[in-house]
Amino acid sequence: MTFPQWIRACLDRVEIALQNGLPEVDCAPAKLHEAMRYAVLGGGKRVLPLLCHATGELVGAGSQALVVASVSLELIHTCSLVHDDMPAMDNDALRRGKPTVHVQYGEAIALLVGDALQSQAFIALTADDNGLNAVQQAALMRELARASGSLGMAGGQAIDLESIGTQLSRAELETMHGKKTGALIRAAVRMGALCGVTPEASAMSALDAYAEAIGLAFQVVDDILDMTADSATLGKTAGKDAQHDKPTYVSMIGLDASRDLAHQLGRDARTALDRFGPQAACLRELANLVVNRVH
Amino acid sequence: MTFPQWIRACLDRVEIALQNGLPEVDCAPAKLHEAMRYAVLGGGKRVLPLLCHATGELVGAGSQALVVASVSLELIHTCSLVHDDMPAMDNDALRRGKPTVHVQYGEAIALLVGDALQSQAFIALTADDNGLNAVQQAALMRELARASGSLGMAGGQAIDLESIGTQLSRAELETMHGKKTGALIRAAVRMGALCGVTPEASAMSALDAYAEAIGLAFQVVDDILDMTADSATLGKTAGKDAQHDKPTYVSMIGLDASRDLAHQLGRDARTALDRFGPQAACLRELANLVVNRVH
Repeated sequence: MTFPQWIRACLDRVEIALQNGLPEVDCAPAKLHEAMRYAVLGGGKRVLPLLCHATGELVGAGSQALVVASVSLELIHTCSLVHDDMPAMDNDALRRGKPTVHVQYGEAIALLVGDALQSQAFIALTADDNGLNAVQQAALMRELARASGSLGMAGGQAIDLESIGTQLSRAELETMHGKKTGALIRAAVRMGALCGVTPEASAMSALDAYAEAIGLAFQVVDDILDMTADSATLGKTAGKDAQHDKPTYVSMIGLDASRDLAHQLGRDARTALDRFGPQAACLRELANLVVNRVH
Repeated sequence: MTFPQWIRACLDRVEIALQNGLPEVDCAPAKLHEAMRYAVLGGGKRVLPLLCHATGELVGAGSQALVVASVSLELIHTCSLVHDDMPAMDNDALRRGKPTVHVQYGEAIALLVGDALQSQAFIALTADDNGLNAVQQAALMRELARASGSLGMAGGQAIDLESIGTQLSRAELETMHGKKTGALIRAAVRMGALCGVTPEASAMSALDAYAEAIGLAFQVVDDILDMTADSATLGKTAGKDAQHDKPTYVSMIGLDASRDLAHQLGRDARTALDRFGPQAACLRELANLVVNRVH
């Protein structure tokens, strides 16, 4: 199977599971369920599911477990996008090439969509017969809850808010991104690993190092694309970092140095995988994908 | 131990666990952690922890497990209060006798406080050495996630939003409240039971029936108090149901019939406990408390 074929197969499985895992629109409350499906389905790069699958397959995890873990990650991720786009936060009108949830359904529903998607992530992880035993369910929830909480994703958002218009040091910028986007990327890799035979500590550390590098690379490229790509390509509003006076890698070290940094982080990520040999091919390809993505 | 002493002991344990379970304000991001603590600590009736404890003690659950379950319930409950109070929803300025979180810290932080508290609930349930084994952790998460999601609390909120200014049937009103407040009350009772030796199916059904009656009674009394009490007594804005043209039991069947209904539901709740004998004394007292509360 080529890498593009692997991606297609993986995303198809996850998309079907997302469709089946969300309540149908004919189930009350209809508008909330419609908006939840609108937010989640038919868009998104699905980087977290890909990382989760590639790591899980490296440690012999079963497909059903990986799909469940991927669904939970994508639901939490979408929760954060819906809330971040709201007027009180980034006030954005475009996401994944469509009007944002609050533009389409109103702010109150957007608020509830985020809350309900977060619950839905934990519903998916604890569903009966989902391919995960209780120990795995508890371990995955622990990862996901920590990654999304005040010391993870939500905390990164709070730091982001506080940093608008201020001068961050590069270390502070890294800390912010490590929480805001890095925490969930780390969780995706770790959750994939926890779906299989738990790797020994040194292997887990290598995977953590990979995830750390990928997480940062993802954000550096985000900053580059926000500056260089147009909204149609991105599927979200371009140029909003500068517009909101947000500190970014580009504003801090310039465009060329940011590109160099992204490539260096890609190399770091691949180096961290050396011990796994050819079996980590998909994780290596994903590192390239993150660095070279154009949207 | 008298019932008031039992309440005091129970609430003291939960309050300490909430204080210890939330990140400290000197931990970054400081403002988010300060706002999370502001939202959760030093207020609230803590009905869910009391129900959880009383049920758990009936089935021999350990104190540590019950405190953890109670903390998770209270965190999810507070998440919903913080988001419900926001301008896009109920737009309320007063809660637990204090300015609401968005009034005190701004809307963006209020949004993140709710999200982070929801994560924090699941962090508490999956913490190491929290008195729950993996099977219990997974079972409790399942209850809590379902109770808070789109078929539970968040769904009830969505129905509530849609119902403003419309004419609901009594059955529709019950469905809405069954999700909006009832789901978490049911979860509190069931989670208490799951912390101990899992009760046989008929005992669980009796506890469900108790929780169902208590949940509805709680809401009927809420509607009565919104109409009859003042804001200082309630610690939140009184009269807002009528102001928002929300359907309530009082608007539907009148004040006297609502009071009768609350007392009948209290009797139903106590009847459901018959099989448990004197050991269910605290649950019976809690039924009285819910029906006769004045704030």
